Amino acid sequence: MSAIRHALNTKRADDFAAWYQEVISAADMAEESGVRGCMVIKPWGYGIWERIQRLMDDRIKAAGVQNCYFPIFIPLANFTREAEHVEGFAKEMAVVTHHRLIADGKGGLIPDPAAKLEEPLVVRPTSETIIGDAMARWIQSWRDLPLLTNQWANVVRWEMRTRMFLRTSEFLWQEGHTAHEGRDDARAETLRALEMYRACAEDDLAMPVIAGEKPENERFPGAVETWSIEAMMQDGKALQAGTSHYLGTNFAHAAGIKYQDREGTETLCHTTSWGVSTRLVGGIIMTHGDDDGLRVPPKIAPHQIVILPMLRDKPEDEPLLTYCEEVRAALAALSALGEPVRVLLDKRPGKAAAKRWDWVRKGAPVIIEVGSRDMEGGKLAVLRRDAIWNLETGKSAFTYPQREDFVAGAADLLAEIQQALYTEAAERRDANITRGVTTMDEVAAHFADDVKYPGWLEVKWAKPTGAVLDKVVEQLKALKLTLRNVSRDAEAADGTCIFTGEPAVERVLVARAY
Amino acid sequence: MSAIRHALNTKRADDFAAWYQEVISAADMAEESGVRGCMVIKPWGYGIWERIQRLMDDRIKAAGVQNCYFPIFIPLANFTREAEHVEGFAKEMAVVTHHRLIADGKGGLIPDPAAKLEEPLVVRPTSETIIGDAMARWIQSWRDLPLLTNQWANVVRWEMRTRMFLRTSEFLWQEGHTAHEGRDDARAETLRALEMYRACAEDDLAMPVIAGEKPENERFPGAVETWSIEAMMQDGKALQAGTSHYLGTNFAHAAGIKYQDREGTETLCHTTSWGVSTRLVGGIIMTHGDDDGLRVPPKIAPHQIVILPMLRDKPEDEPLLTYCEEVRAALAALSALGEPVRVLLDKRPGKAAAKRWDWVRKGAPVIIEVGSRDMEGGKLAVLRRDAIWNLETGKSAFTYPQREDFVAGAADLLAEIQQALYTEAAERRDANITRGVTTMDEVAAHFADDVKYPGWLEVKWAKPTGAVLDKVVEQLKALKLTLRNVSRDAEAADGTCIFTGEPAVERVLVARAY
Ligand SMILES: [Zn+2]
Ligand SMILES: [Zn+2]
Repeated sequence: MSAIRHALNTKRADDFAAWYQEVISAADMAEESGVRGCMVIKPWGYGIWERIQRLMDDRIKAAGVQNCYFPIFIPLANFTREAEHVEGFAKEMAVVTHHRLIADGKGGLIPDPAAKLEEPLVVRPTSETIIGDAMARWIQSWRDLPLLTNQWANVVRWEMRTRMFLRTSEFLWQEGHTAHEGRDDARAETLRALEMYRACAEDDLAMPVIAGEKPENERFPGAVETWSIEAMMQDGKALQAGTSHYLGTNFAHAAGIKYQDREGTETLCHTTSWGVSTRLVGGIIMTHGDDDGLRVPPKIAPHQIVILPMLRDKPEDEPLLTYCEEVRAALAALSALGEPVRVLLDKRPGKAAAKRWDWVRKGAPVIIEVGSRDMEGGKLAVLRRDAIWNLETGKSAFTYPQREDFVAGAADLLAEIQQALYTEAAERRDANITRGVTTMDEVAAHFADDVKYPGWLEVKWAKPTGAVLDKVVEQLKALKLTLRNVSRDAEAADGTCIFTGEPAVERVLVARAY
Repeated sequence: MSAIRHALNTKRADDFAAWYQEVISAADMAEESGVRGCMVIKPWGYGIWERIQRLMDDRIKAAGVQNCYFPIFIPLANFTREAEHVEGFAKEMAVVTHHRLIADGKGGLIPDPAAKLEEPLVVRPTSETIIGDAMARWIQSWRDLPLLTNQWANVVRWEMRTRMFLRTSEFLWQEGHTAHEGRDDARAETLRALEMYRACAEDDLAMPVIAGEKPENERFPGAVETWSIEAMMQDGKALQAGTSHYLGTNFAHAAGIKYQDREGTETLCHTTSWGVSTRLVGGIIMTHGDDDGLRVPPKIAPHQIVILPMLRDKPEDEPLLTYCEEVRAALAALSALGEPVRVLLDKRPGKAAAKRWDWVRKGAPVIIEVGSRDMEGGKLAVLRRDAIWNLETGKSAFTYPQREDFVAGAADLLAEIQQALYTEAAERRDANITRGVTTMDEVAAHFADDVKYPGWLEVKWAKPTGAVLDKVVEQLKALKLTLRNVSRDAEAADGTCIFTGEPAVERVLVARAY
């Protein structure tokens, strides 16, 4: 096996964090904006987010949830409710205090002191409270229930340490908020959203996840139950990729969301909320990226197939372009993975090899190069991004099918790549969840400093609460570990709780996390 | 002809402004949020915006323009450039000055004085400057051109007097920004965007527009040319529904957007920008609404066909629901106007007649009621929203086709309604543009207070500039009139300028405007 010369400078195995940043810049997905904690999402990164949005939104609409749009500004009063119950309340938020800029007379600009808002406004960190207010207005009787709303929007949380896609001051997300007659209906919606997220992660993003309930200490404030999908990144850390909360009547109590029930009695609604964000794009990078850049699963690739004509700025270019355009049109007429094939004929100036590496780094699922010899033979030079290297020779693993044959098999090829990326990630995840550890010493050894990618542990526990749980969390924190969730699919537990020695009741995942 | 009892309390002819507000609330499109100048866009209003977005975005992508996302916050420095050139600069904008809220010790919350930003941030009123900065970073050589970007986002302009959809402090829009090698290419892009807007307005929104160049006084600051589409509302006023600007090298000069040209010389780019907003939804209301509520053109209707089973809470409901579900499935399998038919089976509790009027007010293009007798006869009761009244009887103009016949004709019916709404609006517009007025006295008479809907004038003018134009604008302002645009399609002008008496060079539209 020859040495492969990879496209990136940093290898995953050498410095995962630096590799992550290099993928983002090499794939031209995003960049620092100059505005603290905010990024510019560039076409390839935003195109992936748009694909996620489109597929998720189809699922949201299919469930009968309706999209709305709520104001970006939240009145201070909406936070006072929350602050009432908290000693020494302090929260990082972007606060608007003035509504005019004026010249300061020294060549600069200042907020106009004469245009100070009577009551400052907060840039929404979530729309939870303002949607709650709307629900309280909109719901009168059981006939108005369930009320199923969702919003796609930007939100701002003033973050001190940021990381592109994973933690930024401004990010894009969807937040679902629903109100129901009773517990059962609200819990069913909570789990529907959770399973929607699982399906989207696994079927669309090819990112295997564990769907389960978070332990008490990881619950969203005010939630009765918090569920999450957790994905394993290639460094073995967990990424919480989506959450769904059953809020009981707590939130309805605070916001006054009531209805007349079928007997005419005024009753509090049971509510839910659920969200995913541009964080998912970070998850895709750390699930599918390799030492040559990103690999985008076909379902969410802005372009699934990229055609690169080897142009020479000569008259021969013309038949070559015609040939490529014919291939493009034939592919664009196909349907793959339930949608029309997204194919790009990249005619930009520049050497084909340089452009090929551009698309390798971006991770277009299939790259086709066409030179005059290929054209004369009626062929194409095809590279699968999920398997670009011939491991024998260390060279690019091109194949050279007849164009008709390639077109005939293109839809299957895209489906195969989608499946291959999922399988690779699922096998890695399954190989890196360790079961059978029964003592805290073993836990410590498993996560010792010299163990590179220790993955996750699934341990039996007694599901402690309150102070006992706090102690468990502290013990884990000393090892830089967190409780992730209790998989819906885990086997029942017998034996002893690894933390308390009491009889175990379920299995919980323990991992380092983003 | 019997008296018709319309669904709204206010008639267009009685009080157009009040009628507009009533449509918005009767069709459940939006409501006041409690946050100054910001509205909540409810599912039906947002669904229409989503449809506009989807169709416009397809056109944007088809033109090779790529979507990006830029930060919501703009550094103060980006406005200093602009302020430098303006005496007594003052601009209404939402200014973020603090990044933390704390308890004030008296049960309230205040911005934490310890968390004051060194440099305030502005909530974007447009992303013009921050995208300009990005372009300056992204463009090196002619090979990087044209650079075609677009953003879908929320923006904030602190408005003193707001009106839902037409003028709100926060609104949703798209802003296209492009950079080019030369004047010709940039102007071609400016006009491509203009024609894209015209096509979207006319073909998708069924809203006829005049596409043309704005006079100098109406130009976007810094633009060399500003083009617009202008739509005529039912009260005869003009709505500027979209703009496209050719910015020459002015903007590139300010933001430092330069490239190495094919000869290796550093050269300024020619740039463009173009945008439409949620204002379009206001345009749809004032173009297509009637005294029974909204009428949504099928291409942008979230639901094109709504099926209402006449349920009685009895065992007979079951076969009726099965029958309706069969009709729904048959319709959903169809394609109309280039997309799958969007059909809703509305099973919510409530009387069918009340639900029918709900959907009439919302303006679903086709409403189907099904009772047991319809089912037994294999029929449907069908109401076209664009023609709901039998003008002879004053009753609802139901027809009763066999279900197979209705399904077979449904795609054609939707296309016919789309066309009918367009034709109605185009005929009204054409009937209300007056030509041949040649003196200012005639203009004043045409727009006298007792003339209800005077429409627009198309007058010949000498295209004055500078101080002469200023005087024209003042004269018109005294009559509450504005110059709209010079249609691309207008005939050449001969004769005399109505304002200056000089030889006329073109025809300009004069109108009251939103
Ligand atoms: Zn309370
Ligand atoms: Zn200057």
